[in-house]
Amino acid sequence: MAPGILSTEVAAIQNGIKDGIGSKSEPINSSKEHELVLKTFRLLISDLCQQFNGGHPGGAIGMAAIGIALWKYVMRYAPLRPDFFNRDRFVLSNGHTCLFQYTFLHLAGYRDMTIDQLKSYHSKRWDSICPGHPEIEIEGIEVTTGPLGQGVANAVGLAMATKNLAATYNRPGYEVVSNHTWCMIGDACLQEGVALEAISFAGHLKLNNLTVIYDNNQVTCDGSVDLTNTEDINAKMSACGWAVIDIEDGCYDIEGIVAALERARASTDKPTFVNVRTVIGLDSAVAGQAEAHGAAFGADDVKRMKRVYGFNPDEYFVIGEEVRQFFSDLPSLGEQIVSQWNELVEGYVKAHPAIAKEFQRRLNGKLPADWKSLIPSSESLSDEPMPTRASSGLMINPLAKEINSFMVGTADLSPSVHMAWEGKEDFQHPDLRTTCGINGSYGGRYIHYGVREHAMCAISNGMAAFAPGTFIPITSSFFMFYLYAAPAVRMGALQRLQVIHAATHDSIGMGEDGPTHQPVELAALFRSMPNLLYIRPADSEETAGAWITAIEVKNASSIISTSRHKVPQLKQTRRDGVAKGAYVIQEDDNAQLTLIGVGAELSHVLDAATVLLETKGIHARVVSFPCQRLFEGQSLEYKRNTLRRHRGIPAIVVEPYAPNGWERYADAGISVRRFGHSLPGPEAYKYFGFDVENIVSKVSDYLTKINQDEILKGEFIDL
Amino acid sequence: MAPGILSTEVAAIQNGIKDGIGSKSEPINSSKEHELVLKTFRLLISDLCQQFNGGHPGGAIGMAAIGIALWKYVMRYAPLRPDFFNRDRFVLSNGHTCLFQYTFLHLAGYRDMTIDQLKSYHSKRWDSICPGHPEIEIEGIEVTTGPLGQGVANAVGLAMATKNLAATYNRPGYEVVSNHTWCMIGDACLQEGVALEAISFAGHLKLNNLTVIYDNNQVTCDGSVDLTNTEDINAKMSACGWAVIDIEDGCYDIEGIVAALERARASTDKPTFVNVRTVIGLDSAVAGQAEAHGAAFGADDVKRMKRVYGFNPDEYFVIGEEVRQFFSDLPSLGEQIVSQWNELVEGYVKAHPAIAKEFQRRLNGKLPADWKSLIPSSESLSDEPMPTRASSGLMINPLAKEINSFMVGTADLSPSVHMAWEGKEDFQHPDLRTTCGINGSYGGRYIHYGVREHAMCAISNGMAAFAPGTFIPITSSFFMFYLYAAPAVRMGALQRLQVIHAATHDSIGMGEDGPTHQPVELAALFRSMPNLLYIRPADSEETAGAWITAIEVKNASSIISTSRHKVPQLKQTRRDGVAKGAYVIQEDDNAQLTLIGVGAELSHVLDAATVLLETKGIHARVVSFPCQRLFEGQSLEYKRNTLRRHRGIPAIVVEPYAPNGWERYADAGISVRRFGHSLPGPEAYKYFGFDVENIVSKVSDYLTKINQDEILKGEFIDL
Repeated sequence: MAPGILSTEVAAIQNGIKDGIGSKSEPINSSKEHELVLKTFRLLISDLCQQFNGGHPGGAIGMAAIGIALWKYVMRYAPLRPDFFNRDRFVLSNGHTCLFQYTFLHLAGYRDMTIDQLKSYHSKRWDSICPGHPEIEIEGIEVTTGPLGQGVANAVGLAMATKNLAATYNRPGYEVVSNHTWCMIGDACLQEGVALEAISFAGHLKLNNLTVIYDNNQVTCDGSVDLTNTEDINAKMSACGWAVIDIEDGCYDIEGIVAALERARASTDKPTFVNVRTVIGLDSAVAGQAEAHGAAFGADDVKRMKRVYGFNPDEYFVIGEEVRQFFSDLPSLGEQIVSQWNELVEGYVKAHPAIAKEFQRRLNGKLPADWKSLIPSSESLSDEPMPTRASSGLMINPLAKEINSFMVGTADLSPSVHMAWEGKEDFQHPDLRTTCGINGSYGGRYIHYGVREHAMCAISNGMAAFAPGTFIPITSSFFMFYLYAAPAVRMGALQRLQVIHAATHDSIGMGEDGPTHQPVELAALFRSMPNLLYIRPADSEETAGAWITAIEVKNASSIISTSRHKVPQLKQTRRDGVAKGAYVIQEDDNAQLTLIGVGAELSHVLDAATVLLETKGIHARVVSFPCQRLFEGQSLEYKRNTLRRHRGIPAIVVEPYAPNGWERYADAGISVRRFGHSLPGPEAYKYFGFDVENIVSKVSDYLTKINQDEILKGEFIDL
Repeated sequence: MAPGILSTEVAAIQNGIKDGIGSKSEPINSSKEHELVLKTFRLLISDLCQQFNGGHPGGAIGMAAIGIALWKYVMRYAPLRPDFFNRDRFVLSNGHTCLFQYTFLHLAGYRDMTIDQLKSYHSKRWDSICPGHPEIEIEGIEVTTGPLGQGVANAVGLAMATKNLAATYNRPGYEVVSNHTWCMIGDACLQEGVALEAISFAGHLKLNNLTVIYDNNQVTCDGSVDLTNTEDINAKMSACGWAVIDIEDGCYDIEGIVAALERARASTDKPTFVNVRTVIGLDSAVAGQAEAHGAAFGADDVKRMKRVYGFNPDEYFVIGEEVRQFFSDLPSLGEQIVSQWNELVEGYVKAHPAIAKEFQRRLNGKLPADWKSLIPSSESLSDEPMPTRASSGLMINPLAKEINSFMVGTADLSPSVHMAWEGKEDFQHPDLRTTCGINGSYGGRYIHYGVREHAMCAISNGMAAFAPGTFIPITSSFFMFYLYAAPAVRMGALQRLQVIHAATHDSIGMGEDGPTHQPVELAALFRSMPNLLYIRPADSEETAGAWITAIEVKNASSIISTSRHKVPQLKQTRRDGVAKGAYVIQEDDNAQLTLIGVGAELSHVLDAATVLLETKGIHARVVSFPCQRLFEGQSLEYKRNTLRRHRGIPAIVVEPYAPNGWERYADAGISVRRFGHSLPGPEAYKYFGFDVENIVSKVSDYLTKINQDEILKGEFIDL
């Protein structure tokens, strides 16, 4: 029996799992049956890796007993309805052990996950649903994992989503949202900063609906974990506010694991960390060694394992009838769980029709039909100069206030990012009111993440992944610090999750904080990142357009990048222009060149165009270019008509960032090819040549050179 | 008295600080004198922020007593010789409190830090040495900080540098390297993942020469830390292997702080965490509140503070004679420390001439003159196909083996990255041999960082910052995971630190691990990052060139980006070509176009050129283009002659990455504008069109279109 587990609890478990999928099943099966399932699973994993001589067998094999506990006894889910709303969520943070999950999905009866698909792991099949790491598009996979530490942070987000929905919609007798989140992690995840941030935060939030199961095999690629990590992990988790349960024999003690997991589900005020000792690559020749981690065991050793297990060494991918039988009740049990929930919701709809209506809208992933009317109209906007970060608040605060879909967070920059609306309630455990005077509840939707940018974004991915459209998470920080969060922003984009990142203090205009805070090269990353909209609006009107676009585009993440300093409200800007990525803001039929302005510096460009005409008689048209990716989606005709380079009119882009990528749209650029400098915003602009005077001078010099044929066609010029 | 401090120790301190700079000074001064210094310091900070109505006063004011303890009593340094090799290192991880450090540098007698310079904080002076965050270029600043969590990881690197130098060069009676590293952190740093990674690692390494001083004011931008973090930090630090000392009255108890710090310096087997309770913005109207963090207090409140303190409210920037007197002995004490060390080294040179010679070479930041001869010559290279990650090992392993300057680490990917040399010794605390059978010592230079990519790079920055050229740290991981480390890579580049990142598994050729591991958009980030060389070598010869360049370029960081899979050895590649960024690898005077090949796909391009000629009669020249930033540094003439676009020959780039930035050098590109796909490498290449057949077909179609005038000049085409 696992230490720390009360014998009464184990007895309760052994008499039939309470409430779980297993509750409708027979009591926990004989150890002989378990032994057969364990052996079958381990050989199957060995075969799947051996066929193409690759993959990650060791971890999956070590976790076999945990998988049986989860899929057979503990988790509440419906294999035939993978999208069942109130299902338990399972996250494989150690995503390289994906065969673990694929194989249990197959055994549990998920229809897409055929044995044929299982065999496609590491194959040449482009339509494999068994990629090298689990991907969200696949039935039964809640989030794409692989980059270590992300999954556990996603799991925190999933658990927060449940807490918020439950607090908002559950009514006495109608617990329409009650699912638990289970997360497997390995030794490596526990070393990653993003995981450590998320763990600390989950403890603070007292997420009792979250269980992290630690596949403690003490082995990573380099060898023993002792090489790199000798901390007392249980003490560390306790210090972070987690309940800790130890399982000594994680390779075989299915009963102990089940008891621990049920105890975790019953936790009242803490998330639970179940520390399960396992052996990587159990029963292979490299059992317990790093060699078991990322390579197949070799054909001979797999044969040997089969012989030792009493299997036929010349049979492959064997799943015997007894094993099939063992898992056979899961689909119908899942159907029962769904039916019960459907009945519950039916009663709920009758008992609480008003709130049920909203709940069902959330279920369907919809916003209220009139959401756009909450965004201030063009006519209502002030003419006064304003930082676009404040404009950002103007646009999203009313939506966040009125619409429960928005979960708005900040990495400790509330006073700077303008994301807090009047009367907001914080997302907090209600106990904090008495313990430390912090107001809030799980029904709150404003999240103080602390200075944890990376976890903030990974947690937000988890919330967005809870169900399509149920939540639109918003994060906020200085643009510079999205580099800390970039791996999570990437994972959101990769999964096409709708997460909106409100990034303020962009450009060198943010000033005195200096080069550490001036994000000169970040735009190049996010403009290159697929499925991500990096939008730099120029004033309030464009900021409205940025938010409308980010909310309307359901299958991408967005960064809305705003200024710290005040910018003028420009008469010519158009919110519908933002959706096209770029648009002509000032036309001139006699134009000798096109000036491209972006975000906070668009006004500099407009002013420069005026001065060019007035003082030098140079005609310039001006294009506002808030988003490259949206522009790329336009027709060739639209693109050409916007830029007019096909008519031989050179384009010059002005942006205090690295120019990388602008060469596609412009013939020359005023940009920054070094790190920034600590100076007040206006001085920084001047120091780097983004004042109107310098733009005018550079542009007219360029035109002179062109007219004197000093510039070669097609050669991008840094002005 | 601070809890946890033995009274005997305090007595020892009060009788005169042992060994510290204070040991030559009088015993700790009367509390009246301290009170005056504290008040003077706090008003000075208030004035400095008030003059331009900005900046971060609160933290600096709260830490005043800690500063006095450090600069007056505890730290061993020499104000007049900021680069004294064996000085204690001080890192301000909470860099926004930079006025704290600037002001103590001024008081301690650093010559550059005049009162005039102090007043330039937040001014329009472009030559200010008081930027918004501390910068390494300034006397007395060890590392640039600001992005939270970086500094504490840097401090771990500084402490490791000391340990390694001491283990390598110290001899009985000649402790030529014995400095301590002190690091201030705030509440925010302790929430950042990179700090948590570094803390865990420092505990593992038992770095007893590292002390982290926690400015525990329980306030961040959003308000009380209770909003976001309610963990038991002391228990967490203990669990991570740190000694913990509490100071209850951190605003005034200078004696207690001094005693704690001296106890920390004397720690035998653990790094020390000194948890100092302070009050942010003490004695201002916003004392203890978030409002004290990032804004001046207002002229009226500063006047009020002055009155309460008994100062003249109409006098500004006042440093009275008594206070000057208090710090006046520090420069001469520093000179004594330097003299003593110089004497010690003189004796050392005589007693141990051989090792002293090497020590002095390290001091001077030099490699052995013949280092380049350790890199395999072109002639000696095998013709066999080989992954460039293996080529990377071939080049650097002999240097790392022979030259003590190289500290080589990996984020748990030793079997994959080829950075471990035969006979390497691990950098570990020697006790681990007995406690858990891990071999190594502080003299070891191979570092198992664990799965802590971000800390690995931030720690490496710290080692590089120990003294110019004394160390050349090398990190290694998959290229994808340098996104986790990107904020630290950035800080290295910003500080022009020579750190070399060996990034393997680049491009989609890395295969089965799938889109989570295929770094399609990362190159755009690192190519945009100033002072960073992102180099993709094509074969062993170019990999030699990449390492030579990265080692020769002293004032930049580098990423050497290599393949997981085997690539052919190309006859035409040249190591000296790499240093130029791009070079012609196959000339053709009749060329109709130029093909640009990069790294692992250069061979595809060469093959395509051959097929184009043989099957379609199309003449293509080929340019190998391993590094954009190096190419940018070449003359216009070289650049034009390499690309020949000025002669109207179109260039086509082939690289399975986002094209952003290649538009500068090419007219068209075969690139990837989506995330990757899990497939074996060759299949992935085919799936995304990077096989020779598809390149040939795309290129010849493009040429046809050009000849039919279907393509507009200057418009980049995605093929």
